[in-house]
Amino acid sequence: MAYKAPVRDFAFILKDVLDIDRYSNVPGFADASFDLVSQILEEGGKFAEEVIAPINRAGDQHGCKWDNGVVTGPPGWKEAFKAMVEAGWPALSTDPEYGGQGMPRVVATAVGQMTAGASAAFSMYPGLTHGAYEGIHANASQEIKDRYLPKLSSAEWGGTMNLTEPQCGTDLGLIRTKAVPNGDGSYAISGQKIWISSGEHDFTDNIIHLVLARIEGAPEGVKGISLFVVPKVLVNDDGSLGERNGVQCAGLEHKMGIHGNSTCVMVYENARGWLVGEENAGLKAMFVMMNEARLGTGLQGLAIGTAAYQHAVEFAKDRLQGRSLTGPKNPGGPADPIIVHPDVRRMLLEAKALVEGGQMFILYTALHADLQYAQEEATSQKARDYMALLTPVVKAYLTDRGFHVASLGMQVHGGSGYTEHYAASQYLRDARITMIYEGTNGIQALDLVGRKLAANGGRAIMSWFAELDAFVAENQSDAAIKPFVDAVASTKAKLQEATMWLMQNGMQNPDNAGAASTDYLQLFGVTALSYMWALMAKAAQARISAGDPDPYYANKLQTGRYFVERITPDADAHLAKLKTGAEVLMAMPAEAF
Amino acid sequence: MAYKAPVRDFAFILKDVLDIDRYSNVPGFADASFDLVSQILEEGGKFAEEVIAPINRAGDQHGCKWDNGVVTGPPGWKEAFKAMVEAGWPALSTDPEYGGQGMPRVVATAVGQMTAGASAAFSMYPGLTHGAYEGIHANASQEIKDRYLPKLSSAEWGGTMNLTEPQCGTDLGLIRTKAVPNGDGSYAISGQKIWISSGEHDFTDNIIHLVLARIEGAPEGVKGISLFVVPKVLVNDDGSLGERNGVQCAGLEHKMGIHGNSTCVMVYENARGWLVGEENAGLKAMFVMMNEARLGTGLQGLAIGTAAYQHAVEFAKDRLQGRSLTGPKNPGGPADPIIVHPDVRRMLLEAKALVEGGQMFILYTALHADLQYAQEEATSQKARDYMALLTPVVKAYLTDRGFHVASLGMQVHGGSGYTEHYAASQYLRDARITMIYEGTNGIQALDLVGRKLAANGGRAIMSWFAELDAFVAENQSDAAIKPFVDAVASTKAKLQEATMWLMQNGMQNPDNAGAASTDYLQLFGVTALSYMWALMAKAAQARISAGDPDPYYANKLQTGRYFVERITPDADAHLAKLKTGAEVLMAMPAEAF
Repeated sequence: MAYKAPVRDFAFILKDVLDIDRYSNVPGFADASFDLVSQILEEGGKFAEEVIAPINRAGDQHGCKWDNGVVTGPPGWKEAFKAMVEAGWPALSTDPEYGGQGMPRVVATAVGQMTAGASAAFSMYPGLTHGAYEGIHANASQEIKDRYLPKLSSAEWGGTMNLTEPQCGTDLGLIRTKAVPNGDGSYAISGQKIWISSGEHDFTDNIIHLVLARIEGAPEGVKGISLFVVPKVLVNDDGSLGERNGVQCAGLEHKMGIHGNSTCVMVYENARGWLVGEENAGLKAMFVMMNEARLGTGLQGLAIGTAAYQHAVEFAKDRLQGRSLTGPKNPGGPADPIIVHPDVRRMLLEAKALVEGGQMFILYTALHADLQYAQEEATSQKARDYMALLTPVVKAYLTDRGFHVASLGMQVHGGSGYTEHYAASQYLRDARITMIYEGTNGIQALDLVGRKLAANGGRAIMSWFAELDAFVAENQSDAAIKPFVDAVASTKAKLQEATMWLMQNGMQNPDNAGAASTDYLQLFGVTALSYMWALMAKAAQARISAGDPDPYYANKLQTGRYFVERITPDADAHLAKLKTGAEVLMAMPAEAF
Repeated sequence: MAYKAPVRDFAFILKDVLDIDRYSNVPGFADASFDLVSQILEEGGKFAEEVIAPINRAGDQHGCKWDNGVVTGPPGWKEAFKAMVEAGWPALSTDPEYGGQGMPRVVATAVGQMTAGASAAFSMYPGLTHGAYEGIHANASQEIKDRYLPKLSSAEWGGTMNLTEPQCGTDLGLIRTKAVPNGDGSYAISGQKIWISSGEHDFTDNIIHLVLARIEGAPEGVKGISLFVVPKVLVNDDGSLGERNGVQCAGLEHKMGIHGNSTCVMVYENARGWLVGEENAGLKAMFVMMNEARLGTGLQGLAIGTAAYQHAVEFAKDRLQGRSLTGPKNPGGPADPIIVHPDVRRMLLEAKALVEGGQMFILYTALHADLQYAQEEATSQKARDYMALLTPVVKAYLTDRGFHVASLGMQVHGGSGYTEHYAASQYLRDARITMIYEGTNGIQALDLVGRKLAANGGRAIMSWFAELDAFVAENQSDAAIKPFVDAVASTKAKLQEATMWLMQNGMQNPDNAGAASTDYLQLFGVTALSYMWALMAKAAQARISAGDPDPYYANKLQTGRYFVERITPDADAHLAKLKTGAEVLMAMPAEAF
């Protein structure tokens, strides 16, 4: 079957729930009326369905080929990439100063979800390119910006992020790649980087690597790391391409999934690089890209889940097997389609409730990325707080759930799903990486409880709790959406209890915070999606109350009911688990494992 | 790293917890003193570690090759299979009348776990062979038994089960393969079977297929299905091999995992077959093999989890990354091993608690397989009841948890786990099939709530509840194991409440039973493992109280504490979910998915 871009869902969220026309005084929104955005969604959906989705399976089956440093993408990928660049999609939300269209982030996020749903591995090429764009845009000198941003904005050139080395993944303080000043303002970069997504390919004439390295004599640890821009091909002052730089792809990683993306070992040998931002401030600069990438990873995990769900629905409607427990529903056929069975519906609704709730959560968060630039400081501060607070939840909760949905999708297929004849296996394998890269989900949980909760005296979480409380107060007498409002009140109360527990016990012993972190993040995710579903339920109910006969709205409420009834009970389990503390984890001697 | 057979765990379970020496009056146990069994475990563990485990990766990487109907296994597999046959492992628990060693099922199950942990795909060759042995042993005429059983018992010949056809997996009533009497007592079998594990290979001189087919003129549906034995090579009356029969492997399935096992499309064209059991009673006969296979699948899923856990522990002890939240634990090194981090320990302990609890559950169930043959009818009846009741729980809960553990194992590895350089990916991919084959886990849940609970007026579940109640009553004043006893009482109360809910609501509307089935099975699994952990805690505490200084027992209690504190809270969530009923699932129109 074909991937179907969820244009309708995004339109509902952007118009009925978030009502983006309200924000015309926020930068980027003046030219982004919903009417225009709606056309962008339609066109983006069409492009994802017609150009990207058809090449996804070939990526899995053929992968990338390495030959003496030259990497060739899967059949059809170069052409699709060029079509994407020509259509202007990579520049949708980039800075007009560098050739971008300046659309709000929330719009680009919706389009990005469709790209990732059509092909997750493919979406990593423009995704990493955009990350490099952001890293340079936020940190680099004007000269570097002028030199690289226009072609990164359009994705005429690719971009990458080079952090990991064999001895350091999570712990970037261990980086050994070194940078020696050349005396002309450039540095000679030498070292080995691994797991570099999109590190080398044949889609673009140049690839701009952002590389973390240690300047000779810099302090030990994370305080001695600097960020450099290292082009694959040196760029002359007139913008033309010059000599090949001293960077090579030494090999490709063999991975469980995302075969269409080239995961490269990159070797830098006296490659010329230029400092991005200040000396020894590389980690801070890189975090701009990492936050970007973390939201993108959450989006990707969920988007794979969306595609996996669609395939499972198609299979469940087609596959005839067994009879309904309440009597034949397809009496003329040899059996009923398996979608008649309650347990098959349970799997599909679990997927649907997570996917649609997750889509809302992604766009809600992306809207706050835009609102960071609002003129009123209160709005801007709240948006910055939310972005910091919600990024690890978006990344970890939505990738965990995306993988869960992909696994449900396979289960609906039965044995067929385990064969490579169907797409279910690719979705499961592709989705699994999203729980790991851009900071494992355990690292996200530590970031949430160790940094984000406490920042500014807990201002972000208190502000978010206040928003939920206000929603509950405002809507608690609305009988039509009472279960949704109750779910927000109830999950929020549990998350608040968990937060208090963390404050009391994490201070006493930091291991308590570490021990509670994953369950806390999961509880946060359940609470956030309860709120997302309540926002959607309110909007859908408003349409119904206004007499809109489209069954879309009643079905939205029905899907949300699944979330309330069948997913929110996990909140209690997470709360109970996290309150057991660190002792049960830390008492076991390492040799007893 | 190398797979380490959990010999010590099995010895603890068989001696300290189950005390198998108690059963010397039960068939098979007279010659199975624990002293002898302990040697068997040692030797079985050695064989798994030294002969089977080393070929596991090659199976994943090379898979099986098909060439014009001839299937060749991965490098080294034929040799390992022959070594296994020569060492006599397949005949460990088979009937001495056919050359078997007649050991209890519980002993063979422990050894089988080690084989499957060393290589799940490999274990399917002897596993399916044993299934065919069981199917013939339980149902066939003496002539057929004499002809096939000795060589199936030893695994000099392979065996298979042929159920699935393209149009029928779960719904065997749709089978089309036909059988036409030849007039000489044999039948001409024609049709296509798919997904036949171990269907063709180069390990043995003959392969004995058990095939479900429809005799010409038989009734429609499951009441017209018969079971046939169809050898790949016809067997002469003197036992020598004759002509090739009309059965061919038409191709291999490309699968996400278990690449070392040949998953075959089998084409039967007037193949000669002989009826096993009565005409049109094939499904009942096949169920003997299917129950066998279901326990074996639960065992396999858990065994893969065991191996995945071991690899994760090794990685977590070796990988240096970051510092402990409470100060450096490896101050002389560049970083601490990641096993110092609470969230890494959470993942490892979750895995360990599930694996060790699951091992106990497998052996507890297998012991009841043996006790079915006890002389006292009360013991035998209870054992038969338990086997029927627990088989779907063992199959579904332990394979779900096995996959979960394999996924945790990958997560502990971080990015390394996603590359095919480590074994984590193979374990994840291999484990996933166990949730699907031999009846999807959804089918197991329906079997549990739809058939097993209600059989004989609910005798089995009431008997099992009585056992748990008796345990609680007997041990509730034992302060040393109080948390374990409380967990049994608490989870059992929830399972009982769920059972009452099912009785009341499933009768009114069968969709309520279907809607509750998976959460009911999961709740059953949590309850069963709570009980298993309580049994192990009691045995470990008895050793400690008797002054045994081995830290194994204290560590066992510590692992069990994790289960009580961090896994039993799921029981509440499952209960809350299942009580929401079918309406939320069934109200959604199919076209709205």
